[in-house]
Amino acid sequence: MSLREEALHMHRLNQGKLETISKVPVRNAVDLSLAYSPGVAEPCKEIYDKPETVYDYTMKGNTVAVISDGTAVLGLGNIGPEAALPVMEGKAVLFKSFAGVDSFPICLKTTDVDKIVETVKLLEPTFGGVNLEDIAAPNCFEIEERLKKEMNIPVFHDDQHGTAIVTVAGLVNALRLVNKSISEIKVVANGAGAAGIAIIKLLYSYGVRDIIMCDTKGAIYEGRSTGMNDIKEQVAKVTNRNKVSGPLEAVIQNADVFIGVSAAGALTKEMVSTMNRDAIIFAMANPDPEIMPEDAKAAGARVVGTGRSDFPNQVNNVLAFPGIFRGALDVRATHINEKMKVAAVKAIAGLIQEHELNEDYVIPAPFDERVAPAVAAAVAKAAMETGVARIHVDPEEIKEKTRKLAIIGKSEE
Amino acid sequence: MSLREEALHMHRLNQGKLETISKVPVRNAVDLSLAYSPGVAEPCKEIYDKPETVYDYTMKGNTVAVISDGTAVLGLGNIGPEAALPVMEGKAVLFKSFAGVDSFPICLKTTDVDKIVETVKLLEPTFGGVNLEDIAAPNCFEIEERLKKEMNIPVFHDDQHGTAIVTVAGLVNALRLVNKSISEIKVVANGAGAAGIAIIKLLYSYGVRDIIMCDTKGAIYEGRSTGMNDIKEQVAKVTNRNKVSGPLEAVIQNADVFIGVSAAGALTKEMVSTMNRDAIIFAMANPDPEIMPEDAKAAGARVVGTGRSDFPNQVNNVLAFPGIFRGALDVRATHINEKMKVAAVKAIAGLIQEHELNEDYVIPAPFDERVAPAVAAAVAKAAMETGVARIHVDPEEIKEKTRKLAIIGKSEE
Repeated sequence: MSLREEALHMHRLNQGKLETISKVPVRNAVDLSLAYSPGVAEPCKEIYDKPETVYDYTMKGNTVAVISDGTAVLGLGNIGPEAALPVMEGKAVLFKSFAGVDSFPICLKTTDVDKIVETVKLLEPTFGGVNLEDIAAPNCFEIEERLKKEMNIPVFHDDQHGTAIVTVAGLVNALRLVNKSISEIKVVANGAGAAGIAIIKLLYSYGVRDIIMCDTKGAIYEGRSTGMNDIKEQVAKVTNRNKVSGPLEAVIQNADVFIGVSAAGALTKEMVSTMNRDAIIFAMANPDPEIMPEDAKAAGARVVGTGRSDFPNQVNNVLAFPGIFRGALDVRATHINEKMKVAAVKAIAGLIQEHELNEDYVIPAPFDERVAPAVAAAVAKAAMETGVARIHVDPEEIKEKTRKLAIIGKSEE
Repeated sequence: MSLREEALHMHRLNQGKLETISKVPVRNAVDLSLAYSPGVAEPCKEIYDKPETVYDYTMKGNTVAVISDGTAVLGLGNIGPEAALPVMEGKAVLFKSFAGVDSFPICLKTTDVDKIVETVKLLEPTFGGVNLEDIAAPNCFEIEERLKKEMNIPVFHDDQHGTAIVTVAGLVNALRLVNKSISEIKVVANGAGAAGIAIIKLLYSYGVRDIIMCDTKGAIYEGRSTGMNDIKEQVAKVTNRNKVSGPLEAVIQNADVFIGVSAAGALTKEMVSTMNRDAIIFAMANPDPEIMPEDAKAAGARVVGTGRSDFPNQVNNVLAFPGIFRGALDVRATHINEKMKVAAVKAIAGLIQEHELNEDYVIPAPFDERVAPAVAAAVAKAAMETGVARIHVDPEEIKEKTRKLAIIGKSEE
């Protein structure tokens, strides 16, 4: 069978991928009297009296909503909420498999920002966190910003921050390898979508100061007259302080790092050859990268990462989101802040020891079982240190719990 | 341990009752390529091209939203959406245990009718059905009516129709026992809340013509000047055509049937003694019925049902909703209509054979494994016959599937 046939067969055979099950047996009247009437009234009364106990007595504290409007699904674009559902179910499956997080897909029948914000806010009682997924830019920015302000549970747009965290983790390790300092490098990012914007924001949090972002019209700079929008105006205020203009091929000269979240073929060998020595390339266009790794290497690049599993250094969000939510949930965090993201970057990067580090291994593999536990513990710690945790839990306990709950790598019982 | 302690312990130990799990393993890169990128793009594309295949390739066709605003939870009243969550999780557990239906609690942070309607409509892509739960009257009526009109999946307010279906099933059997015809009986219903209204509507569908409904001000009749509202006006238009006024104790005289969805003690022995011979009493106030069964019997009643598990003839919604949604989902129904409800009544009532029927056995027990399969098959058949089914499935197949999926009565593996 082809991959297409096999994937369709698997989805049809199981009528999707996600199922809800009971953690307690309900086989007889005694079971029923505890799980439902009359026993269930007891946790209800407790929560009514002490609202924070909703985390003790219900699924809320382990449950994340995976929210999409279906406007930017994989490489397929705006395919609508029904067609997006297989991806959101898949996301829920990954949450569970990698970190034991329960999650549920909510595909919304609207693309209106106000309606999405209003709806997600009303869903808050059931959930301990919100993962926004496959919502097109620029709506995704406004939706996330507003929800973060107006909700008391973490809201995280994975296409932005998950990608950013893993990319920056890879960059941190690549810089260790080539002995360059993060404060001295020049970074050129190509593609001003959700992921690109998030990456440069996180690079900025991390101390990178020389960043130029390009879109299809070339470098974005303060005062550029065409093809700007709110987000790009913001970008122009903090990056490219020399207001360099011109196409990618001009601004890429003497760059140390290229970050591609654009389209296949956007980066040529000629451009790479004008970059600084030991150039670092993250070419993450899907399914075909901005430049193929062998071409980038031939043109002088030292480290190349892509979004693909068949090349080294795969930038895969699954390294970030399961552990991030695991850590956030376990300390009942109200937010996922920049410090928590930076902690995730460090946890991911830190798993590769000095002696293991090489051109083809700056990012851990997606199924590296150490990743989610390390990320969860680091994120929880950062949440506690920055005052967004509702409770205190030993990070080592969280690490151990995550290890126990994950099923990746484990053989079937 | 007391029931209270045991219930709290169980809920805390498991951090609630519901969990989401994957139907497919994701332990390695091959699994991941089918369940997620790149394989998942194939069902996405299929659904985009042929929207109805969302029922084939996703969880939608087996998944019900359990929606509440927490305004009328058990006997606890308006305790809010967080405190309602244990009940909604419990409901989801029952859906799964009794009929293999996946469901998910959505507790909404609003009690505004327009917002609830708007929100639930936007959730449609993920779900194959909507079960409204513990929403106070009169809002529940408007919410259900509007959602039924504006959604293409079944919407069912269980507190209304589940209770109504089981009550009427019990009544049908009680009438068989006492040899009275449904078209000749006089019914008095006490309590004009959600369940009461639904019961008299279903009785009307079933052919009962002499119905008087009472609220705390006595009989409801056309033209009554105090304590009326939209719903009661509607009630007054189809019931009590002789416009009898007066308190319950007056109108109960010569009634054949009393339906209580009101409060403990509302029915006295004196009132029962004025009813017709072989009186039938459904005293469903919770936790204490309108009259205790022994008192009703002593005063001349022949058949007494309550909401309690420690008395005979328990009116328990669990006899209805799991099978109803199982049947509706399996034929991809767009609605749950009156004919489907009547089919459920007949299926439940019909499980008790003539020779088994007696005063203490007019309603099957909650854990009777035959109920959900019989209801599912009957409801699916009625859906197909009334043109609200999207596909045709042999009802016998549905019966068999329901039997297989249910876990009640089965011993632990």
